[in-house]
Amino acid sequence: MPDSTNRDKGLLIVYTGDGKGKTTAALGMVIRAIGYGWKVCIIQFIKGSWKYGELDGIKRLSPNVELNVMGEGFVGIIDDNKSFEEHRNAAKKALETSIEKMLSGLYELVILDELNVAVNLGLITQDELEELILRKPERLHLVITGRNARKWLIENADLVTEMKEIKHPFRKGILAQKGIDF
Amino acid sequence: MPDSTNRDKGLLIVYTGDGKGKTTAALGMVIRAIGYGWKVCIIQFIKGSWKYGELDGIKRLSPNVELNVMGEGFVGIIDDNKSFEEHRNAAKKALETSIEKMLSGLYELVILDELNVAVNLGLITQDELEELILRKPERLHLVITGRNARKWLIENADLVTEMKEIKHPFRKGILAQKGIDF
Repeated sequence: MPDSTNRDKGLLIVYTGDGKGKTTAALGMVIRAIGYGWKVCIIQFIKGSWKYGELDGIKRLSPNVELNVMGEGFVGIIDDNKSFEEHRNAAKKALETSIEKMLSGLYELVILDELNVAVNLGLITQDELEELILRKPERLHLVITGRNARKWLIENADLVTEMKEIKHPFRKGILAQKGIDF
Repeated sequence: MPDSTNRDKGLLIVYTGDGKGKTTAALGMVIRAIGYGWKVCIIQFIKGSWKYGELDGIKRLSPNVELNVMGEGFVGIIDDNKSFEEHRNAAKKALETSIEKMLSGLYELVILDELNVAVNLGLITQDELEELILRKPERLHLVITGRNARKWLIENADLVTEMKEIKHPFRKGILAQKGIDF
């Protein structure tokens, strides 16, 4: 049976899967959070994963919402000329910032965007992921996004939604759309 | 091959499935949209489906974002004492408003929240749904949310994501959380 002492429990929420809407759903939670007058902190683990619309939109919600663009750009793509060590150091810094922000007591909601991707790339180890989650304060809501969430994370989360791609416009020959894709 | 004349095509986007994050992803798109200085119109087909956090959060984005709370409350639940005819009339009015807002030229993004639910309840017919979609202006981005999207809608959409429930906190015996569920 649900226990009323659970009412103030902060949830661990995971948005994963190959479909669009993971980061977008996390951003939607920001709107709800500011409706309650909450403070929100977002940490981006993959720099450049957001485009101008999202960045400018979030800036308009300042100072209630703080965005920390961390990590390096995408790993292993054509114009990635950084070493694994550089990517790893940037991810480690993002991880430290995440823990610091979680423990600061300043925020009701912390979003770790694309953390799953950093884990899958080996930039963050399973041990580091587990330590991060175990240090989540009881009342803090923590949202983690990115495809291929680890089994351990899914098992330890309170709410997990898989965004499944049913249909994507690129397959129909439509170019990326401003405001939708970038 | 993608055609560059497609760049200004407005997309028809569907968020469906039984998992959490459908309306939330639509709200996340609002943040991106205001980042571009776009005007957004949201029409709620099921009154009461949003809770205070979302309503107050969206109000803070006024006047760039307009929310039309329409339709009646949930159909067929314990405190629903309205006739099918009353629900049907309210849905029809929401439908008319949707078409009017779509055609007004005032918005770059229109969100029809829980429209799929209204269709599944029989409050909106398949013919009405098809007419609505066919009247979407070429450049308008239209987002439709709600579980059990019709096959026709999925076939005619540009981007469809199914939110799949992998894990839900109520199953773990945790009560609904402020800012997350209401």
